[in-house]
Amino acid sequence: MSTFGTLFKVTTFGESHCQSVGCIVEGVPPGMPLRVAEDLQPQLSRRRPGQSKLSTPRNERDAVIVQSGVEFDTTLGTPLAMLVKNEDHRPNDYKGTDQYPRPSHADFTYAEKYGLQASSGGGRASARETIGRVAAGAVAEKFLKLASGVEIVAFVSQIGSVAMQRDPFDKNFQHLLNTITREKVDSVGFIRCPDTSVAGDMVKEIEKYRGQQDSIGGVVTCVVRNCPIGLGEPCFDKLEALLAHAMLSIPASKGFEFGSGFAGVSVPGSQHNDPFYFDEEAGRLRTRTNNSGGIQGGISNGENIYFNVAFKSVATISQEQHTATYEGKDGVLASKGRHDPAVTPRAIPIVESMAALVLADQLLIQRSRDYSRGVVAK
Amino acid sequence: MSTFGTLFKVTTFGESHCQSVGCIVEGVPPGMPLRVAEDLQPQLSRRRPGQSKLSTPRNERDAVIVQSGVEFDTTLGTPLAMLVKNEDHRPNDYKGTDQYPRPSHADFTYAEKYGLQASSGGGRASARETIGRVAAGAVAEKFLKLASGVEIVAFVSQIGSVAMQRDPFDKNFQHLLNTITREKVDSVGFIRCPDTSVAGDMVKEIEKYRGQQDSIGGVVTCVVRNCPIGLGEPCFDKLEALLAHAMLSIPASKGFEFGSGFAGVSVPGSQHNDPFYFDEEAGRLRTRTNNSGGIQGGISNGENIYFNVAFKSVATISQEQHTATYEGKDGVLASKGRHDPAVTPRAIPIVESMAALVLADQLLIQRSRDYSRGVVAK
Amino acid sequence: MSTFGTLFKVTTFGESHCQSVGCIVEGVPPGMPLRVAEDLQPQLSRRRPGQSKLSTPRNERDAVIVQSGVEFDTTLGTPLAMLVKNEDHRPNDYKGTDQYPRPSHADFTYAEKYGLQASSGGGRASARETIGRVAAGAVAEKFLKLASGVEIVAFVSQIGSVAMQRDPFDKNFQHLLNTITREKVDSVGFIRCPDTSVAGDMVKEIEKYRGQQDSIGGVVTCVVRNCPIGLGEPCFDKLEALLAHAMLSIPASKGFEFGSGFAGVSVPGSQHNDPFYFDEEAGRLRTRTNNSGGIQGGISNGENIYFNVAFKSVATISQEQHTATYEGKDGVLASKGRHDPAVTPRAIPIVESMAALVLADQLLIQRSRDYSRGVVAK
Amino acid sequence: MSTFGTLFKVTTFGESHCQSVGCIVEGVPPGMPLRVAEDLQPQLSRRRPGQSKLSTPRNERDAVIVQSGVEFDTTLGTPLAMLVKNEDHRPNDYKGTDQYPRPSHADFTYAEKYGLQASSGGGRASARETIGRVAAGAVAEKFLKLASGVEIVAFVSQIGSVAMQRDPFDKNFQHLLNTITREKVDSVGFIRCPDTSVAGDMVKEIEKYRGQQDSIGGVVTCVVRNCPIGLGEPCFDKLEALLAHAMLSIPASKGFEFGSGFAGVSVPGSQHNDPFYFDEEAGRLRTRTNNSGGIQGGISNGENIYFNVAFKSVATISQEQHTATYEGKDGVLASKGRHDPAVTPRAIPIVESMAALVLADQLLIQRSRDYSRGVVAK
Repeated sequence: MSTFGTLFKVTTFGESHCQSVGCIVEGVPPGMPLRVAEDLQPQLSRRRPGQSKLSTPRNERDAVIVQSGVEFDTTLGTPLAMLVKNEDHRPNDYKGTDQYPRPSHADFTYAEKYGLQASSGGGRASARETIGRVAAGAVAEKFLKLASGVEIVAFVSQIGSVAMQRDPFDKNFQHLLNTITREKVDSVGFIRCPDTSVAGDMVKEIEKYRGQQDSIGGVVTCVVRNCPIGLGEPCFDKLEALLAHAMLSIPASKGFEFGSGFAGVSVPGSQHNDPFYFDEEAGRLRTRTNNSGGIQGGISNGENIYFNVAFKSVATISQEQHTATYEGKDGVLASKGRHDPAVTPRAIPIVESMAALVLADQLLIQRSRDYSRGVVAK
Repeated sequence: MSTFGTLFKVTTFGESHCQSVGCIVEGVPPGMPLRVAEDLQPQLSRRRPGQSKLSTPRNERDAVIVQSGVEFDTTLGTPLAMLVKNEDHRPNDYKGTDQYPRPSHADFTYAEKYGLQASSGGGRASARETIGRVAAGAVAEKFLKLASGVEIVAFVSQIGSVAMQRDPFDKNFQHLLNTITREKVDSVGFIRCPDTSVAGDMVKEIEKYRGQQDSIGGVVTCVVRNCPIGLGEPCFDKLEALLAHAMLSIPASKGFEFGSGFAGVSVPGSQHNDPFYFDEEAGRLRTRTNNSGGIQGGISNGENIYFNVAFKSVATISQEQHTATYEGKDGVLASKGRHDPAVTPRAIPIVESMAALVLADQLLIQRSRDYSRGVVAK
Repeated sequence: MSTFGTLFKVTTFGESHCQSVGCIVEGVPPGMPLRVAEDLQPQLSRRRPGQSKLSTPRNERDAVIVQSGVEFDTTLGTPLAMLVKNEDHRPNDYKGTDQYPRPSHADFTYAEKYGLQASSGGGRASARETIGRVAAGAVAEKFLKLASGVEIVAFVSQIGSVAMQRDPFDKNFQHLLNTITREKVDSVGFIRCPDTSVAGDMVKEIEKYRGQQDSIGGVVTCVVRNCPIGLGEPCFDKLEALLAHAMLSIPASKGFEFGSGFAGVSVPGSQHNDPFYFDEEAGRLRTRTNNSGGIQGGISNGENIYFNVAFKSVATISQEQHTATYEGKDGVLASKGRHDPAVTPRAIPIVESMAALVLADQLLIQRSRDYSRGVVAK
Repeated sequence: MSTFGTLFKVTTFGESHCQSVGCIVEGVPPGMPLRVAEDLQPQLSRRRPGQSKLSTPRNERDAVIVQSGVEFDTTLGTPLAMLVKNEDHRPNDYKGTDQYPRPSHADFTYAEKYGLQASSGGGRASARETIGRVAAGAVAEKFLKLASGVEIVAFVSQIGSVAMQRDPFDKNFQHLLNTITREKVDSVGFIRCPDTSVAGDMVKEIEKYRGQQDSIGGVVTCVVRNCPIGLGEPCFDKLEALLAHAMLSIPASKGFEFGSGFAGVSVPGSQHNDPFYFDEEAGRLRTRTNNSGGIQGGISNGENIYFNVAFKSVATISQEQHTATYEGKDGVLASKGRHDPAVTPRAIPIVESMAALVLADQLLIQRSRDYSRGVVAK
């Protein structure tokens, strides 16, 4: 469905050709300062198309308008409704494609599932659907920062076959996870890869496929620092399970791995296990390595949570494609829409937002347990 | 929490040292034939430890006992409660470990989250917790088979650094996905890798690490055939998101990818897109390739759904480990428990069960929509 | 929270002094004709204040604007977002009351729960919150009508101490339940009591209390005809439990009873039981009496569902009230706001809407079970 | 469905003729002392049939067995599974009734909903289903007592046409609500009416109907003292809405009213409103009267919460009933089962348990909000 979360809960609405897209956020802490310009708009602008020549030229301003739940720049604790108007949708661009379900897009499955075809083809599969997530995520993030200084930073670690070094067992990579900031990520330009030794090649990779009227995928890596210990609700709502759910709900995502991930399967337990030590500064147990990716037994352990999300190449390309119509006739589909050759860099704020939504919800749940622990222990 | 699903819903209970483990399943179709011996026990037996010398010598019979929801081998449609008694738990085996949180196990995070330490250390992180999932999954699977001949087959595709060929773009691999059966998988022996050219090496890999009192991880690949078109509930409950959630909730899992997965990010859209054609036999549109892994826009498209799940090496090893006690003192932990050097083969029925739980739930939801479509279209 | 329902699900937002109030509806059948003017606005207009001199003079037009989920007057099956702008709110009217929590209003409890005071005092306790419910309910009702000709008619059966005859054991009352229409209810005027022998007295009752700058409560009776058999999900989501939940969530409601209700407790089983007979016309079993109120064992039995909802007198009155300030000082509060002396007649569309939301959701769930029954019975 | 609650959540299972009935409770505070004999069994024994000659002679011991979630009499915070074996079910007693759906029982609706007939006829509509609720409620109650000294006391206030005085506007009744204890209620004998001036007549009322092989209904009144301020989640999960949901989910319940209830509709706002005053002892605002029944705007205000629940006469009676068979043939049904002439007294612990489940869940949710308030206010 279009609702995500238990206590901190978002419900989104909107497709690319309707009046607006947006969301309702429930469970917002009451009394939290919240300003549209400072707190919400920045992430929405990072998500917006048209940030560089590498992305789609659609010129959408994506200004978020708060409908409820805030007075005098302070949250009321009541449902926070936010929307962004659809201004520049040009529905005709897609008209020519109407007889063809676009290959690997959602046209076919939406038609099968809902028994009709929205003028936007894939309905809610549009990237504009993510606006509501990012607006909600910005609220979650603000809360997490106030609550325990949580920092969530995502970046591009691969475009096509150009990848930065992201070996989880490598100390330099772990150092980067410790230090990377959102400012640093954005300073590289729209490509948002902090490893400047490969960022240029990534841009070229995108330009190559754009030149071929083609598209290419990528990988987003994300780190969460200062995550409180104890988040995650086994056995089904382990923290990694919720993060995986969140990430795989992002359009075009194909995979998720955290900590050592797929690479970790070939490392024996004796090396993979993260031994404990007492950290004097923190005043508590920590682990010497972090192959667990900050989550053990489905519960955060206070170390950095880090994970990768794979994004496939965008389905809509300007090349001609030999395919079939809805009626089953073979033919050639030529797209005329305006699309990104690579959406991965724009996925950055979406990944961060979904992570924030998961963590804010889990934090509220665990703090409720903490309360009950305190009560019964008396 | 310990509940999974919306209409077809399972709630599990139990840790390794309590009276029993089990589950309540809600939303079971009424009037379905269900026999413990034929329908439930086989998957539970596949999950059970002690199936070969490669796995733990714990001798648990794991006989499931139905408490409610079934009469005369027929489901009532009311909650189906099932339990398996904990017979051979020997709690003392773990006693020596009490002062040390086992590295990369759940001891530390459970202690932090719940403020206490169960005698089993990691509480619900025990592999025995998965018994309830497998029992429930067997019921879901039975329903899916009756509903549309759904076939779910998982197998081991990697142990440590020994991997079978599982390139999603390879025709042979796709052929294997089309034809592999559970019988074929089990016929190879407990290693459960259908590629006999590597199965032997996998066994050796496990034996090597067992010889070193160590452990090793692996990858499980799973295919779902005959999945009805239209399952999955965007935008947050996309089918891949639910599968990812389900898989990452399995103990020791570290990653999930479906279709082309992480490998697909470097393949341009022109090659990655799955063109449509009209399949005369099926009487409907199908795709020539299946890089999408049977899911487009978060909704099943009728092609095979296939995915990989990464499992890390088991945390509990018999080697000594230099680590710290709960109180922060450095020291050496020697485990005396009985454990698998590689749990990946035993994860097969768990992966299948979790997939079945996701699909049964989504099928019920979509059929309800189908009904409403039919009503309003009149 | 602000979400209600499982498959057919509404999430509302908005308080009386924000930009807009509204809702997102999930689970809307795709392909359903839906026109704002014909399908949504009528119930919203019936809910609106300012319909007669008996109600508040606030002049709100309450025009609903659809944001998403509908194209060309047809639902897409995606989330349906709707909003109504807050035009005439005059926040200053309430300013004088700021130091006093209004007695029996939500000011005190909202301040305690959320730790702040919204400029509207009671935040979401405002009657404007119900706009989202009514908009969503109109969609649910449309679906129910198409699905099985469900008719939901509510009416005022008591104002203050003036009550129409509503003895559940009386044949005339049961006849009225069989025949009453919404048109008939509205034809009586804003008082909406179909018993014209008492409607005039009800108007006088309201005028009496208005003359005294006071307010008075009432009872709404509601009947659902043609409800499909089999709705309701025991054991916790019995149909009457969901209806009770729905009705008691309406502002100012104090009680709910269905079928024989509180009067039924003194009638022995031999008289209270509804014997079965075979109805030739319907071609199925029916009950000779309907003391059960159309629900047995928590499940609809195809007879009329009928129930009463008690509404207390409105808390905000123009009389002076001796009470205390937030700080605890005794004093006299004089309200200057514009308020209804009796909201009961305006509650009619809200009661109908909440009933429709419950039934639409339960119908979707049961039809999904019907599907599964059909599958496993083969 | 069979799950109730959000954070403190119970899922029940079992019908009267299966192996056992019971529940899984999630969200239990970890580290809470919990002993079966002291904490769970007492309420189960109060619910048990066979407590007096007034109730059914079925001799069930109803000994609860904990399966998981507790070690050494301390909760682990993991799912708490509990079950009670079905020992004395004698399924043959009902055999003769198989061709007739029992009037006003759940036989007909269960057969229609599920498409089959369990040997117990009404399946989960059996009163034995409530065992799981009472076991879970006992856990909730223990937590509430530790958390803030919450006291929940229910009692019989009416049997048939014999009612004690329960006028909400009467000072004596309010005094009784302030002082009544569970011990006091039980001291009167199984009739559980604290007003000894009518308790004897109630017993006679039951005996009269039992003598006529008939049954009779009643009303249970319940008070919650020391409920923390701020519980309830508007707008749909107002505290009264959740309580109504909970109470109407109890078998045979027909109505719910809280505070002034149905009687309050004829009292004008000027008298009905509860003025505030500063209570020196409590150190906070309180209300001089409590017509609101402890809930304002859907949120608890710290005053006593009190409500009435109507229970109809038991459907199964020993008298012959003229009715029809499932096939539609007219005929006479004679019941041979053992049944209570009045279940109202046995409903006492069920009402208390359901109230406790609602409050424990809401307390956890609100304490989570309190945490977030504290965080953002810094």
